[in-house]
Amino acid sequence: MNPTIELLKSHRSIRKFKDQQIPRELFEDLIRAGQCAATSNHVQAYTIIHVVNPESRRKLAELAGGQTYVETCSDFLVFCADMKRATESAEKAGAEVIRGMTEQLLVASVDAALIAQNVVVAAESEGLGICYIGGIRNNPQDVSDLLKLPAHVYPVFGLCLGYPDQNPEVKPRLPLAAILKEDVYDDAEDEALVASFDDTMARYYGARTGGNKDTNWSEQLKPLFTSKLRPHMKEFLNKRGFGVK
Amino acid sequence: MNPTIELLKSHRSIRKFKDQQIPRELFEDLIRAGQCAATSNHVQAYTIIHVVNPESRRKLAELAGGQTYVETCSDFLVFCADMKRATESAEKAGAEVIRGMTEQLLVASVDAALIAQNVVVAAESEGLGICYIGGIRNNPQDVSDLLKLPAHVYPVFGLCLGYPDQNPEVKPRLPLAAILKEDVYDDAEDEALVASFDDTMARYYGARTGGNKDTNWSEQLKPLFTSKLRPHMKEFLNKRGFGVK
Repeated sequence: MNPTIELLKSHRSIRKFKDQQIPRELFEDLIRAGQCAATSNHVQAYTIIHVVNPESRRKLAELAGGQTYVETCSDFLVFCADMKRATESAEKAGAEVIRGMTEQLLVASVDAALIAQNVVVAAESEGLGICYIGGIRNNPQDVSDLLKLPAHVYPVFGLCLGYPDQNPEVKPRLPLAAILKEDVYDDAEDEALVASFDDTMARYYGARTGGNKDTNWSEQLKPLFTSKLRPHMKEFLNKRGFGVK
Repeated sequence: MNPTIELLKSHRSIRKFKDQQIPRELFEDLIRAGQCAATSNHVQAYTIIHVVNPESRRKLAELAGGQTYVETCSDFLVFCADMKRATESAEKAGAEVIRGMTEQLLVASVDAALIAQNVVVAAESEGLGICYIGGIRNNPQDVSDLLKLPAHVYPVFGLCLGYPDQNPEVKPRLPLAAILKEDVYDDAEDEALVASFDDTMARYYGARTGGNKDTNWSEQLKPLFTSKLRPHMKEFLNKRGFGVK
């Protein structure tokens, strides 16, 4: 196993950071490494908002559901899907552009995820810790107002970066056979594989809490699906000019 | 610059592969490294179809718009957003689950992109080359039929993996100042930054073609936005149970 693969396999989210700033030069290098990720048709449909204002950080921590590490990490980024820059550039070059396609929502959201994951790998290769903040979509309109996002730009997720002040275990993942299938989607084995993964996760939660947390993967997922998760997203995206057509 | 950041910065898509198979052990290791990427609420909302059947590979190459490297690479993967496994597991644990939320489309698409980018970094760290295939969304229903994808699963993109038989240059990226903004989205400089990037890309295309390709970034984007890109995606996703609500 080469050191890069070893690094990837050692990932875990960090939610407690040292009071230590990432040097600006290194920070920029992480973003540049991120930019080298693949991008659909070279469109680079993303903008990263680097939030340094302490009051904005406090508000974002609150808007994301009280996630204090948004405030306490060294650098907090909001990765935005951005169809504004590319479509306006094509427009200035003389094109009559069409906006609002669902396909553009996918292209920009995937582009934002690819650059982010490269930033994450680069950061972790320098001993930094990270935590994705999906909670930025709890109140996406307020986040957009705070960051003054224009139309055709929407906040996909946040990312905390900083020097780790904790050393959590790597969390287990589904068995390979569950998520990797040959030629066709065949879920005949999935029930057994999930049952075995439920056991793995029950042991993991048990060990972490000295036997006080009696749960497993399937149980943990229940609250995610029993309520309408972020039911505002459809209308919010439409309002921002994403996914209308 | 550490070797991992150097690796990230050396990425370019590979479209010509040696006739050489990735050993199965290494292949599985790449996927396992991929799985260690962050995943929203541990939901792991993806399934990878590893397409080995030659006839399926031929059809997929065609469906993706005649991209022959889908056929000629060592391993071809289709990364699917998968809300079936997680919601069914929660259901079996007793939850009354809600499907079809736009938020679930985002979670699963981003999850698929994060695992894919980790697979890419792992592959490149072993000297392999990769090419993302967004063209899989040209005919997503045919692709879904071929791979027997059930409801609540959709193909986000393909990925070619193999031993490179070409050595293309790294393609330039937008200036950092265009895609990285402080505290708020401020595009006052964007026009100048894009103009400078257009010059960069004009030089890049000129050098690659011995002066025969007179174009730039903005020009190259025009055909992407003047027609309705993949106008079937909205209805297709709705039919598969994504993004209805």
